[in-house]
Order: sequence, then structure tokens, then C-alpha cells
Amino acid sequence: MASDRDSATACLIIIGNEILSGRTQDTNLAHLSGVLNELGIRMIEARVIPDVDETIVETVNHCKQRFDYVFTTGGIGPTHDDITVDSIAKAFGVAVEEHPEVAALIRKREAPPAVMAARLRMARIPVGATLIDNPTGGPPGFQLGNVFVMAGVPMVMQAMASTFDQLRLPGGRPVRSRTVGAFLGESQVAAQLGLIQDQYPDIDLGSYPFYRPNGYGTNLVMRGTDEAALEEMVERITQMIQDYGAEAFLGGAPTALATED
Amino acid sequence: MASDRDSATACLIIIGNEILSGRTQDTNLAHLSGVLNELGIRMIEARVIPDVDETIVETVNHCKQRFDYVFTTGGIGPTHDDITVDSIAKAFGVAVEEHPEVAALIRKREAPPAVMAARLRMARIPVGATLIDNPTGGPPGFQLGNVFVMAGVPMVMQAMASTFDQLRLPGGRPVRSRTVGAFLGESQVAAQLGLIQDQYPDIDLGSYPFYRPNGYGTNLVMRGTDEAALEEMVERITQMIQDYGAEAFLGGAPTALATED
Repeated sequence: MASDRDSATACLIIIGNEILSGRTQDTNLAHLSGVLNELGIRMIEARVIPDVDETIVETVNHCKQRFDYVFTTGGIGPTHDDITVDSIAKAFGVAVEEHPEVAALIRKREAPPAVMAARLRMARIPVGATLIDNPTGGPPGFQLGNVFVMAGVPMVMQAMASTFDQLRLPGGRPVRSRTVGAFLGESQVAAQLGLIQDQYPDIDLGSYPFYRPNGYGTNLVMRGTDEAALEEMVERITQMIQDYGAEAFLGGAPTALATED
Repeated sequence: MASDRDSATACLIIIGNEILSGRTQDTNLAHLSGVLNELGIRMIEARVIPDVDETIVETVNHCKQRFDYVFTTGGIGPTHDDITVDSIAKAFGVAVEEHPEVAALIRKREAPPAVMAARLRMARIPVGATLIDNPTGGPPGFQLGNVFVMAGVPMVMQAMASTFDQLRLPGGRPVRSRTVGAFLGESQVAAQLGLIQDQYPDIDLGSYPFYRPNGYGTNLVMRGTDEAALEEMVERITQMIQDYGAEAFLGGAPTALATED
């Protein structure tokens, strides 16, 4: 991996048995990575853990020491398996209290007493936390220290993440990427790729093979904060592909090749 | 989480910058969880880590002590960013050698010397490892101790996982799940759900809200190894939903409701 000196680091903790069991496909990692890239924050690790108190506490305590920012998704609803808030509070050694502003928001929508009591679980916020707005109109997330606690439902998580900016999450230069694809096997380009990577140590160069009905090949992905270096590397890669007698596709190899009429 | 006394535990380490950056969506976790469930092995944690040697070594060493089985996907191709094999060997303190059987397989397909040299990187296997067959015909994965090293390309990973059986991966009773859905909000069922969960401590009961064009509601998912207890819990949950005057949908709430003609 290239040097991270230009950017801050992040870790996502995905909390939920349903992701681990394979029932639900996580999409929050990919979305959040994209949002953070724009803020110059690199996702360095992600963990998927079950709804188990000790595991959440231990994982949060470990990650908040190691990364500039830690994000969590999942486990902040009204039911018995929503234990994230209490576990986060425990990790920080603080109490959980009903937050008057959030409780007022929840009470706006009328409900029978038992339902309202369940809903008000979502007003329970660790002492000292600041809220993360929820533009869908539902209960907010919160930030405690460098830990950002968000909903697991992608629509809600994405709405919360849309409120992040450089003021709240100081990062670095945006991380940019370029992709060049070719219908060449990875083994054909391997030696040259290694040489090119060595010349641009601050750009990550990844090689991703594909197998499609229209042929097999490789997409080469460059990621870094130095746009000039990225453009230079794109030219080098393009030249390499053409030297092999193949076509270089900026943006990645097409999923279907045009045929001549 | 319910007791794991009936089943073995597993952790998946997903190795690859492309998953962390959001460029590629992982699907291997969900697939492998399903395969392992059938063998009575529960996925307890997953980690997504970058192609960084120290990180791979540290993560593998940590996880192989904590879980019965550790699986890795990604980073075993022919290019400079494919460093998994060397990192796994380092974690176990063993050397890497060209495996004669794998080299013979790779040499069957002719190629110019430079391409063959790159391809033969995939014949490099840690000393003492046993191979994991690759039914696609490509290079195999390998097992070293309780760590199973597989390709990241889903088609190849799935082929390798299809070779797993009780002989190689002793587990426990298969983990089964049942889903019952209803067009009821999570907050409406929260109190009852907590009571039902308390009565079946060995079954995981998860509550997953959904928001769809045909209405919002909740899917309730039960997971465990005791089929009789699962069936009992399904009946309890169905009764609870009907007591609220709603319809209980076995298998989960439909994505579109039938309308009367």
C-alpha cells in the first residue's frame, strides 16, 4: 500500500449477525469508502462482528486507538438485538441517557405507549456524544470521540454519511483513482507492472483479473492523492498495454465489445 | 448471540485494497457463510484488510488462535500485489517452495518464458501446506494448520469452497434458519420479541426492518441448530404477529403484495 502521509485513516465496524450469516449483503463499506475518499480519508480496515457486547466493546476499544476515525453501522434500532449504543458507551466508560432533542423528535410521531417506549430506545445516547444528523427524518446517529455510530439500513446510513464534511472529519487531499483495462492476462503484464509500481511508490497499483463472455483480461487500478503522478502512471500503463499489441481501455475494459457491422 | 456449543467457529479474512476502496463489492463472505452453515461451522467474524504484509501476518496470527477455522480470500495471483502466500508462510514461520504438482499443472498450458515465470508464482506454496482443489482447473488454494487460503475471484473461491466437507472441516450440526415477516414496525413488536428471545436462549432471533414501495415492516430471522426449537419459535412469532392483527409471511414479507382482481 502506498504511503498514507497525505490522508487520515479509517476503520469500519459492521455490527450484525445478518451480515455474518450471509443473509444480508453489506453495501455500507463500499459507500462509506467513497464518501471518505472525497474527504481525503482512507479506509484501512473493516470488521464484521456479531451483536455480542464483549466483542463490540473490545473491537471498538482496539480500533479507536489505531485509526484516526472509526465508524460503526448496525444495531441501533428499537429491538432486543440492538445493543450497539450500550456497548459503545461501555467502551468509553460513560453512561447512556435519554437525549431530550432526540426524544422530542421521536415523540412527534404519535404511537400507543408500548410502541412509543420501544421507539424511545432510539433516543438513548451516550453522555458526551454529539449527534449525527439523519436527513431521512428518523433518529440521528452520534459521535463519541473519534467513533461515529450510524444506522445499518443502507438508505439511512447513506443519509447520515451525506452530512460529513471536512469540518467534522479533517482529512487530507482527496484520494483519486484511475482504471485502465486490457484483454491481456495478469501473467502477461505481471513483470512490467512490478517495475512500474516500483517507480511510483506513493500510488497503489492493483491488478484485477476478469473473466467475461467477451474475453478474459485485467483491469489495472491506480489510487493516490497526486493527480499528476496518477496521469503519468496512466500513460505508462497505456503504453505498456499497447506495446503488447493490445488495446488500452481508459475507465476499464468494456463488458461487451462493439462488433463491426 | 446464541451458544456455540454445537458448532465450530470461523473467521474470514478478506485481503484486498479493492474491497476497502469500495471499487469491488465482496460477495465471498455471504457465500462462504452458507457453505460453512451446512457443515455446522458458524462465521463469527470477518475482517477486510489491505495488501500489506505486516497487517496480513498480524491478522492471521491473531485469528488462528481465536477461531477453529480461518479462511482467507484474495492476493494469490501472479502480480506484484499478490503477497498473501508469503505473508501466510511468515505467520507460520515456514518457507515457501515451488510445489511440483502445482507447477506441473501450470506448465500444461504453454506460454512464453516471461509469462510462464509470472504464472509459476502461483505454484509457490508454504512448506507443510496441503492443497485445496480448484475445480475450475486453475491453481489450487492451500491449507496450513487451521488456515485455508483461497482465491478472491468469486467464481474460483466458490469452486474451492465446493470441495469442503466434514472430513476436512469437522463442525457440528448444520445451522438452520427460519424467517417470518410482517408489515409491522420494529417498535410494535420489540417488547414481545425480547420476551420470546429470552425463552429460547440457544436460538438467535434477529429483527430486520425494511422499507419498500409496498409498505414498511420487519423480517424476523431465527437461527440455530435445534430444528424442533426453531419450529416452536416460528409458531410463537407467527402467533404474536396475528395477535397484532397482521399477516405472518413464512420465508419473509413479500416484495410486492398481490392485489385482488
